[in-house]
Amino acid sequence: MIKSLFTGLAAALVAVPLWAETIETSAGALRVEPVVENLDTPWAFGFLPDGTILVTEREGTLWAVRPDGTRVSVSGLPRILVDGQGGLLDVLVPRDFAQSRELFFTYARKQLIRGSGTAVYRARLSDAGDTLEAGETIFSIARGTGGGFHFGSRLVEAPDGTLFVTIGDRGNADQAQDLSMHNGSVLRIDRDGKAPADNPFVNDRNAQPEIWSYGHRNPQGAALDGAGQLWVNEHGARGGDEVNRVLPGRNYGWPVISYGTNYDGSRIGTGTARDGMEQPVHYWDPSIAPSGMVFYDGAIGAWAGSAFVGSLKFDYIARLAGDPLAEIERIESDATIRVRDVRQGPEGGLWFLSVGNGALYRLVPAEAG
Amino acid sequence: MIKSLFTGLAAALVAVPLWAETIETSAGALRVEPVVENLDTPWAFGFLPDGTILVTEREGTLWAVRPDGTRVSVSGLPRILVDGQGGLLDVLVPRDFAQSRELFFTYARKQLIRGSGTAVYRARLSDAGDTLEAGETIFSIARGTGGGFHFGSRLVEAPDGTLFVTIGDRGNADQAQDLSMHNGSVLRIDRDGKAPADNPFVNDRNAQPEIWSYGHRNPQGAALDGAGQLWVNEHGARGGDEVNRVLPGRNYGWPVISYGTNYDGSRIGTGTARDGMEQPVHYWDPSIAPSGMVFYDGAIGAWAGSAFVGSLKFDYIARLAGDPLAEIERIESDATIRVRDVRQGPEGGLWFLSVGNGALYRLVPAEAG
Repeated sequence: MIKSLFTGLAAALVAVPLWAETIETSAGALRVEPVVENLDTPWAFGFLPDGTILVTEREGTLWAVRPDGTRVSVSGLPRILVDGQGGLLDVLVPRDFAQSRELFFTYARKQLIRGSGTAVYRARLSDAGDTLEAGETIFSIARGTGGGFHFGSRLVEAPDGTLFVTIGDRGNADQAQDLSMHNGSVLRIDRDGKAPADNPFVNDRNAQPEIWSYGHRNPQGAALDGAGQLWVNEHGARGGDEVNRVLPGRNYGWPVISYGTNYDGSRIGTGTARDGMEQPVHYWDPSIAPSGMVFYDGAIGAWAGSAFVGSLKFDYIARLAGDPLAEIERIESDATIRVRDVRQGPEGGLWFLSVGNGALYRLVPAEAG
Repeated sequence: MIKSLFTGLAAALVAVPLWAETIETSAGALRVEPVVENLDTPWAFGFLPDGTILVTEREGTLWAVRPDGTRVSVSGLPRILVDGQGGLLDVLVPRDFAQSRELFFTYARKQLIRGSGTAVYRARLSDAGDTLEAGETIFSIARGTGGGFHFGSRLVEAPDGTLFVTIGDRGNADQAQDLSMHNGSVLRIDRDGKAPADNPFVNDRNAQPEIWSYGHRNPQGAALDGAGQLWVNEHGARGGDEVNRVLPGRNYGWPVISYGTNYDGSRIGTGTARDGMEQPVHYWDPSIAPSGMVFYDGAIGAWAGSAFVGSLKFDYIARLAGDPLAEIERIESDATIRVRDVRQGPEGGLWFLSVGNGALYRLVPAEAG
């Protein structure tokens, strides 16, 4: 029932697309269809069971796009710090949304004491779908820092219903190795923003209990694979963008080890490997500036089981497959301009958000049109 | 006398150059002559009054190249941490070298407590010119940090004989705004490594007294202009490389303000300007990775009064002129590959160090050959 409603939505929106491109890929001919246009620095999107599409804009707007194509700006967001890479960031529609009507957001906020940081906001979407109610900032990093960059931040619902939150190093590389700081980490929190009792550092007095893994630089993409395992991708410094399989308590090495290379050929960090630090499963050098990530099992059959990662820098979507996971295809079109987010649509298409074009698109088999 | 000796040296070395290229420039035809080859990641060079050329290699070798073209590895350097961008870095031959025989170096070292940092080493060159004697680390930053990058570091002798030392933010952006940390600053020290009594923050208990200016990201080039004023260039983050005219006590803004731009179009920092923070005189976006800098008044007459800055990224030497100083010409040749340092030779040529070719070159008027 939900799926059929949504298919109705997608059909309505793209029945007479303003523009549609057909591209050749390893999965055959695919059509690139615009679904939502005229977006201002979009950051993330999600799907509600009634066919509504949610889209965040970094400047602080949450759009609800109805199945009939109309859109409404949803009220009730917290006070957001729009500063460089900071602003309204990710949106998560939890699996129990139909019952709970809860939504989760990450955003940048001014800290009480000093600087700014990444925070998680929880609210209920009103029945009319235009207002966030009972909104609460359930988590905020312990200490703010200056500078408007490396906020992270992706929200992923773990199989057990807890939330993973990726936090960048805020431009302070050493903080990624400092367990007393949330920066440069993947966090795991419950739906009230608290550290679950089985987090790896809950009994370490010198560590923040929400930390799940650390040594990350700026993880801007995260997704579960088919087995429920968390993966994260992150921006390196001058090369060395990484895809990491994230396990609890592990140290992913930034800034001690990195595959980045300075202009004079020297390594960034002390090298590429060290005991006690994890290796990336895949890395890009030069940097592609990876963003949103998804493990796909939708309607483009040849791509089922692949992971997709948007590139902000080189205007394509990376397809990763194999064991170990590695980039094996670059999907490029006039629509893949600064790809910020990639998700699977309820109808099975591969949806993505272009910052450059200010639009949400979907990729579907050409013959399905 | 010194000049004529040196001219003799240069002539000897380039009388039968292995390779020489002639390039067309705004100053007419210039010849690019290799002077020293087979260098391994060279970082800086300097001239002794007897015609010897000193060249540092990042891996920790100091070469003394004699007028007859032979070279000797000078002993007596401190224990150097070769790590990423760190290693043996700048060399300064002070104006009184003929009397004092003192040399100054910057280098990366392991700190006693934790991490690593930039330090300044002073030693006397033996009369034979092959040994550093009475060597002493006269200055070392107060607190070490991790990561092998953003060490700075250039050494410039001020008109009053004190030393300016440029220190990078070590990848910890916030430290550039933290006066209790030396990182991300230009320092001014006397020849014993102490803070002169007229430094701007000597009476501020929360500041390091050696700090001359702050808010710098990674200043890898510095030079005095003809009036004795200090200029510094520094690497921005994704664009926003800056040329700054450095005045005491001033805040050059990193990471709060920057002309860098993230891949999604957002600013790095809160914007490009703020009260109480200095504007760059010139900036590059995209980044050129600027390195060594010199104000030139040598034998290439049309270029007298111009400043030159090497580009590590785009393989050229930038010529800057005008008021405000701005890049007006790009000097490119097969020799300008990853230019790490640029200085004026005693004979009036424009000398530069190519990391890519592992060689020291000079530019001279073609007809002078």
